[in-house]
Parts: sequence; structure tokens; C-alpha cells
Amino acid sequence: MIVTKYEGNKTFSVSEEEAMAPLAGEVQIKVAYCGICGTDVHIYHGMMDQRVAMPQTIGHEMSGEISALGEGVSYLKIGDKVVVRPLDNRGELPSDKGISHICKNLKFIGIDSPGAMQQYWNVPAFTIHKLQESTDLKLAALIEPLAVACHDVRLSGLTAGETAVVLGGGPIGMLVAFVAKSQGAQVIISEVNPVRINMAKSWGFDVVSPVETDLVAYVDGKTEGRLADVVFEVAGVQPALDVMTEVAGIRGRIVMVAIHGQPKPVSLFKFFWKELKLIGARVYEPEDYETAIDLITKNELPFAELITDVQPLSKIQNAFEQNDLNPNGMKVMLDCQS
Amino acid sequence: MIVTKYEGNKTFSVSEEEAMAPLAGEVQIKVAYCGICGTDVHIYHGMMDQRVAMPQTIGHEMSGEISALGEGVSYLKIGDKVVVRPLDNRGELPSDKGISHICKNLKFIGIDSPGAMQQYWNVPAFTIHKLQESTDLKLAALIEPLAVACHDVRLSGLTAGETAVVLGGGPIGMLVAFVAKSQGAQVIISEVNPVRINMAKSWGFDVVSPVETDLVAYVDGKTEGRLADVVFEVAGVQPALDVMTEVAGIRGRIVMVAIHGQPKPVSLFKFFWKELKLIGARVYEPEDYETAIDLITKNELPFAELITDVQPLSKIQNAFEQNDLNPNGMKVMLDCQS
Repeated sequence: MIVTKYEGNKTFSVSEEEAMAPLAGEVQIKVAYCGICGTDVHIYHGMMDQRVAMPQTIGHEMSGEISALGEGVSYLKIGDKVVVRPLDNRGELPSDKGISHICKNLKFIGIDSPGAMQQYWNVPAFTIHKLQESTDLKLAALIEPLAVACHDVRLSGLTAGETAVVLGGGPIGMLVAFVAKSQGAQVIISEVNPVRINMAKSWGFDVVSPVETDLVAYVDGKTEGRLADVVFEVAGVQPALDVMTEVAGIRGRIVMVAIHGQPKPVSLFKFFWKELKLIGARVYEPEDYETAIDLITKNELPFAELITDVQPLSKIQNAFEQNDLNPNGMKVMLDCQS
Repeated sequence: MIVTKYEGNKTFSVSEEEAMAPLAGEVQIKVAYCGICGTDVHIYHGMMDQRVAMPQTIGHEMSGEISALGEGVSYLKIGDKVVVRPLDNRGELPSDKGISHICKNLKFIGIDSPGAMQQYWNVPAFTIHKLQESTDLKLAALIEPLAVACHDVRLSGLTAGETAVVLGGGPIGMLVAFVAKSQGAQVIISEVNPVRINMAKSWGFDVVSPVETDLVAYVDGKTEGRLADVVFEVAGVQPALDVMTEVAGIRGRIVMVAIHGQPKPVSLFKFFWKELKLIGARVYEPEDYETAIDLITKNELPFAELITDVQPLSKIQNAFEQNDLNPNGMKVMLDCQS
């Protein structure tokens, strides 16, 4: 089987190896597709070399079919279409208070242990979510990032009729916008890239370029002064942090989706003055996976258009290099059987 | 009657004026006591001169008795012991979504209109909360700041058995600690002033000086690694902002009580990583007043010891000057009938 490994220094190796039989409690998956996540790009750029044990197979936004069952796995069968929720919480402690998905000793499969960018992948059976027979496996590789979006929206407490402002229209921002809209919210996306702006408009979204339009005045006008009920900070840049507390209305909730590596200036006064809430949101819980699976199964949203490129697994080096050169692209996927 | 007015430039005037009859919908209160709030000190220091229309009578942490009723006020009677919830929300808009206590056009009585540092005070009747006949009016002047604390604790969602860390043991921090403890929480106070540390210890609190002890390690040890369920940021300084995201455990809630005038660096990464919540809390709602009144009426907590000085209203200038010179003091009150 084809196995790819991140070797450090912006380099992937591609080799032919023998597929290993799954251990007890594991399943072997014939991987269909694996998306390139922002985290994978971070790893490729060497920004997580202290965490990733090189050489390492990475990747976690995947879909596939069960190809072998380890001892004791009876509720799955060969040929089942599946996705993996790549969270290994076996090191959970009482001090985690049962909040398994972000427990202190959480291992993220595909970062802290081998990932899906290979033809066959062995994972603990408890990570599996089963799909319906009819599910499109290319779309199914969007379930993992879509589950992130479902988690973000769920933790925001968004209700139908509320106004959600999404700061940043990259893949996660777009998925958050889709989920928020699917739950009946009025969605406004703030994005600077003209290609992404047009993409979002083509999907029926209200999009503002904050460089050209005063976002706060725009949202104020669209909401009769109520401003945003929920703000999703998905941009990861200081101007987004500056505007998030302005564009949120009284008792607005701001969901922190972006990863800000360093402490950044935040207007705590606005939190006090308008009784805002900041809600940290990380990965997902099983119910978010089920919501995402449901959305992909129904396939009523233009998910397919989010996939802007598919490359063969054997061309992983080229795929990451091309991805860096194309800031307009949304989701690049690897076809793991070619 | 004695009327005091802030004249700017750290100066109060004291004059004798005719008491005015209350207008329709108003009541006249014979003010018993009025505490000096941090906001009053800010005004005295000239930091709110742009907002305060000088000369202005300030003060809002008060207690008193109804001395006259304006036309149409039938549910109160002369002699009733009362406190005022000094929020004038008559400019409320639909865009405030019914969140009256922090509505956009809120006027704070005692800052934006005349306050309680005078012998007789006319206020709209809708601001009144009635006290029981037996209530001690000196303690009752603590109801306003205590209502702030009740609001902070209520918005935190604190439940019995949880661990609350209070950053800053000034008057509001101490009241937050009392309220949290009264609701069954394990409370740890972080404070640097040795006099305040001893005061808090004398009231049975677990107190840490973060200069001498590693607060995070201390709370970790006290909670078997769970860390704080709720953190109250009442200190208003950068070290508190640095530690709040460290001392909060997984899905911990951080209540922003302090007023940070400028944007300050915050570890948004910790919000993401531990799914923390930041909750802005400002003033109070009617139910917080009722909770505070109940605590003062029961008088089971050492509230009296929080009042470290009482000065006659006519000596207001001296009271503010002495207050500045005594960083160890807690609550200084004016006796408004002398």
C-alpha cells in the first residue's frame, strides 16, 4: 500500500509498505479521500515539529470503508462506509470532569499518532462513525471540518432568526456559515479575498469586505441596530479581534474558533459594557459528528463546490506545494487510492 | 438641607439648599448613608469629567427612608426604608432586546443625573426597592455593591461545590467572595495587600498572595487538578488577566467584573484549548437587588466589618481625601444626616 510521511523541512516521503492487520479493538480502513486541513499545512511548514514525531503519516479529514476488523469489534462489518473522529481520549482523568473531547491528555490521531494520508489506516474502533450506504465518500471527507463548524454553532447557542457574523471566509468559516444558515440564522460573512467573496455570494451569502465597507455600520443597518447576536472569529488576525467586540450587540456571544498563538489585545471593556460572552470552541463531540453526517447525507448544500482540487495520494508533495501557491483555493483533497 | 456637589479638580462643595418636592412619579428619600464607590473616586480624580455635568451631586450606594411621595406613587408610604437601584432605562430601544439594565441609552443615576450625597434625594419611584422595617440602614448602604456581586455570581452560573477563584480582594471582590461562599462554593481569594489578606482570613476565606505563592499550583492542589470552575477578575491589572486563563480549569467560566479602559493582551489560545468562557457582567438586574436585600436582611455574614470608616456628609472633602490616603480601608461611608 502507499504510505506518505511528513519527514520535516516541507517534505513528504511516499513509500510502498505492507498493510498491517488491525489489533484487538481496532479496525482497518481503506481510506477513500483525505482533505488537507490548516493544521496539516502548519505541520508541513514545520510549525509543529516539536509535537509531531517525524517521520509521521498525517491527515485526519477522511472518509473510507472498513477493510478489516480487529478482535472484539462486532458492531461493524467489512465494506461499511465510515469516517473517523480522530480523538483518542484513553488518557482521560477525573479532573477532566467528563469533558472527553478536550481532555488534558487527549491525543489527536493524525498529529500525535499516524493519520489518514495512506491507503489503509488502522484506528481504534471507538473513533468510528458509520455512514449510510449511499453517502458520497468525497463529500464525506468534509465531515470532520463540518463537525468543527457544527460544534462552533452549537456552543454559540445560535437560534433561528438570530444574526450571525462570520469573520473569515476560509473553509471553516464557510462551513460555519452553512451550518448557521441551515439552522435559520441570518448570516453575514466578512472576508477580504475577492475570489472567496464571489464564491460565498454564489452560495447566496451576504458578504462584506471589511476593507471596503464599514462592517459594524453594515450589520447595524441589517439588524435595525441590534448588531450581531453571534460572532464567529475564524480569521485569526488582529483586525478581527478589534471588530468582534464592536459588531456584537448587547449580550452578544463571540465564538473563538481561530487559533491565536500569542496573547492579543482584546477590548475587555466592551465585554463588560455590553455583557458580551467569549466562548472557546475546540474540535467536536460525538453529537457534532452526527449533525455533520446528517448534513452531508442530505446533501442539500453546495458542499461539492468547496472541494476546489483533488490530487492523487502519491502526489502529496505536489498537492501541499500547489495548496500554498493558491490562496483562492478552498478545500484540497487527496484521493488515497491513487 | 445639606447638598454636596463635585465641582471638578478634586473638590466638593457643601451647601445648604431648600429640599424640592418630588415630581409626579418620583419619591423623596431622606438619605441615611451613602458609600463611596470606586466610580465616585474616579469622578473625584477627574477621570470622568467628560461625562459628569459639573457641578454635580454624586453617590449611589445608599439607603434611606421615604420622606415624600410624588403624584401617582401609591405603593410606597412615608417612612418606608428603601434603597435605590440607580438605573434609569427610560431611553430603552427595541434594539436593546429587553435587556434593560445595560440598555444603550441607560442613564446611571448619581453619575449622569444627581446622586445620593445629599440629605434629601428625589428619584423616580421605579428605582425603589423596599426594605424590611428591621433592616440596619448602615448595612443597607452595602446593598448596591452587594447587588453587583450577586449579578456577577449569578451570571457565572456558579453551583454549590464548585471552586471559585476571586482575583482581587477589594470591596467588590470581597462581596463576590461572600456571595459565592453563601451559595456553597469553595472560594479562594487572590490578593496582594497584607491588611486585606488578613481581613479576608479573619472572615474564614482561603487567601493566597500571588506574589508569594504560585496561585495556579495552589488551586491545582486544592482541586485535585480540576482548577477553578469560575474565576472572577476583579483586580483590573495585567497579571490578573495573565493568570485568569491559567487558573481556570477545562470549560471554566471567567467573569469580567473589572473595568479595563484599554484593550489588553489575553490568551485567546487558552480560551480555545480549554473551551473557556469569558462573561462580561455590568451592574445588576432587579433580582440581584432582591438577593442582596435578602443577604443584608438575614445579616449572617460579617458585612459590618467591611465598613471601615463613616464620615459626616458635611465632611465629604475630608472623606475622599482620607480614602485616597488609606489603601487598607475597605468601604468608607457618608452619614448623610450629619
